[in-house]
Amino acid sequence: MLAAIINVGTELTSGDTLNINSQTLSRRLFDLGIEVKFHISVEDNKDLLKELIEDSKKKVDIIIFTGGLGPTDDDFTKEIVAEVNHKDLIYDQKIMDSIERFFANRGTKPSPNNKKQAYIIEDSIVLKNDLGTAPGYFLENDGIKYILLPGPPGEMLNLFKKEVVPLIDSEEKIYKKMIKTIGIGESLLEEGIKDLIREENGVYIATYSKLGEVRVKLISKEEDKLNNIYEKIYQRYSEYIYTLSYDNIEESIYKNLKQNKMKIAFCESCTGGLIASTLVALEGASEVFDRSIVTYSNRAKVEELNVSEDSLKKYGAVSEEVAREMAEGLYNRGSIDIAISVTGIAGPDGTEEKPVGLVYIGLKTKDGVIIKKNNFVGRRKTIQERTAKEAFNMVRKYLSEKNIYSIEL
Amino acid sequence: MLAAIINVGTELTSGDTLNINSQTLSRRLFDLGIEVKFHISVEDNKDLLKELIEDSKKKVDIIIFTGGLGPTDDDFTKEIVAEVNHKDLIYDQKIMDSIERFFANRGTKPSPNNKKQAYIIEDSIVLKNDLGTAPGYFLENDGIKYILLPGPPGEMLNLFKKEVVPLIDSEEKIYKKMIKTIGIGESLLEEGIKDLIREENGVYIATYSKLGEVRVKLISKEEDKLNNIYEKIYQRYSEYIYTLSYDNIEESIYKNLKQNKMKIAFCESCTGGLIASTLVALEGASEVFDRSIVTYSNRAKVEELNVSEDSLKKYGAVSEEVAREMAEGLYNRGSIDIAISVTGIAGPDGTEEKPVGLVYIGLKTKDGVIIKKNNFVGRRKTIQERTAKEAFNMVRKYLSEKNIYSIEL
Repeated sequence: MLAAIINVGTELTSGDTLNINSQTLSRRLFDLGIEVKFHISVEDNKDLLKELIEDSKKKVDIIIFTGGLGPTDDDFTKEIVAEVNHKDLIYDQKIMDSIERFFANRGTKPSPNNKKQAYIIEDSIVLKNDLGTAPGYFLENDGIKYILLPGPPGEMLNLFKKEVVPLIDSEEKIYKKMIKTIGIGESLLEEGIKDLIREENGVYIATYSKLGEVRVKLISKEEDKLNNIYEKIYQRYSEYIYTLSYDNIEESIYKNLKQNKMKIAFCESCTGGLIASTLVALEGASEVFDRSIVTYSNRAKVEELNVSEDSLKKYGAVSEEVAREMAEGLYNRGSIDIAISVTGIAGPDGTEEKPVGLVYIGLKTKDGVIIKKNNFVGRRKTIQERTAKEAFNMVRKYLSEKNIYSIEL
Repeated sequence: MLAAIINVGTELTSGDTLNINSQTLSRRLFDLGIEVKFHISVEDNKDLLKELIEDSKKKVDIIIFTGGLGPTDDDFTKEIVAEVNHKDLIYDQKIMDSIERFFANRGTKPSPNNKKQAYIIEDSIVLKNDLGTAPGYFLENDGIKYILLPGPPGEMLNLFKKEVVPLIDSEEKIYKKMIKTIGIGESLLEEGIKDLIREENGVYIATYSKLGEVRVKLISKEEDKLNNIYEKIYQRYSEYIYTLSYDNIEESIYKNLKQNKMKIAFCESCTGGLIASTLVALEGASEVFDRSIVTYSNRAKVEELNVSEDSLKKYGAVSEEVAREMAEGLYNRGSIDIAISVTGIAGPDGTEEKPVGLVYIGLKTKDGVIIKKNNFVGRRKTIQERTAKEAFNMVRKYLSEKNIYSIEL
């Protein structure tokens, strides 16, 4: 079954409100084995909405609408769907009663406008909304299912789960896997699995990149075939894979550190605390993390980490040597297993010798120090985010080399 | 001028990635006086994309695309736009050279796939992308403007601002003002300016709230009318306004600290470095910031900030007393004007006495210590972000009381 989602509301097309309903619905539909072909957000405009429904009808089997079911003049999704399907709107006293009860419970009365909400689409199933005054609708006509849901995300999802799922749930089971990698480019990885993509035979394979990562998504109706493709990809690229779950790199690192009962600390210059706060954004961070330090100025590097004035003068703050001394200084403060140091040029000003994006990351453990020189591309914020990701990736590599990193945690 | 936005990518229709580009573009277009009629997100599907372009062409004057400009087989936005307009794709050696330079800077080489990106749409203007390998395109054909931008939000916005705005900026001057407030709720503020909204007369007034802030947007074709409305709002709510620009609270604080030649430092517990990194995300942070510290465990609070073991035992780490001692300990390390401390329960586990969302923020200056107790609502990440915002807001209030805060910087 193929679906389209139409979100109605000028607050979406003006950019005042971020459309999150389309993502929520896409995920829920995917889990039911229904493929979403496209989303449309449309301004409050009767003619345009009508045209877009007419266009969409030709392309999918299910159209899910959100928004435009309220009591005001701007709300007309129900009216237009009825019109496109040559259905009448019929007054329903029972719905009017429930609207009156809804307001009574809040100690107020419905406005005259609310009467509009008591009209239902002829031949439709009314979907009861516990959380608001606008009911939803399910209409099947000319082989197409029309599902109308209210716009507020909480009401929308509640109605979808309770009322819509039982009406559209198909029997067919869908299997999926997500493979997340760091350290290999998208085009290279795609090149390397082109034979599998071409073969295809019932497994949908898609790669996409996201801020320094490349992900491979596998979807199939046949579990064996999916596992077979997955095994092949794993054999070719295991060294780049950091998880098979929906976790981020920091979540994977967190779980692995916890599993190994290891503590980590950071001394950050150009990232200003981003790496520490990324870890502390996770619940239970205290299991692997105790403290951290931001040494932005040279003086702070000397005073907090015992970096030598000489090295700063001779090599500059952004150098392999200073990254090393920072990591060692932090490690020597004691009671941690992994010390990460970061020093780099986040921009906007760099030099020819030390351009924007030049970042040294140090990793100090009982086994010694590793320094990685990076040349990141992008704006200040992107460089900082890439640095954080690479720092976590260095931890992954270190744990992998010691055979204590699991991608299945 | 009427516009449509088409975002291409299965990661959007599958729900894996939230579509934020359509909101960003809608706002930017709105500011240029261009009305966005609808957004479409479409899966990677050549025929469907073609049909949707054909449908959209009939409805608007400008179609802006994001995504599908990369090197892989899934990327074909450029090819389809060329096809719909009966244009050829032409190989451009200069673009290939710049792609090679891009990879050389990172110490790697383009894959054979990258060659695809060196083909440009006949008769189009190529929009140079400083941040990635995929250039954008501007094509005008049959009275319709087609603008193709890369999918990664940073690259997309950079190209839009630098390359697209000069090409589509309309002659008609639109005046606008953004008023950003912290500390007052949206419905209260809206209630308080209802008379102005009703009056209207050529000034569009919209309020919206965003993570602890309420913003009022004013747009008009007549400067005088807009200024008149603005003056009235300012007179009523000046104590809550932190800026009249597009700056965030951290940018406003940064500019004010710099103006006053003041240095700030943070000691963060439940925010784990988020406040420091929010400041360091800004260019030139070193003018107001030198170092910072994350003291997540009790031991770290004692060792790094001289918090007394007694207070930790007697009041607990999340208490007014510990917030005070943290701020004082940090301030006493010397050479800063403002020391901010944070200690709180970010969740998921709280107690009845100390629930999730309880956060103490301390502000220590030469004038003494101020402690604010907050009860934030939301998930862990939301609580951390709200805390960061409130910390900056406390700095604003302190500077305001000393009459050295400017909302016009």
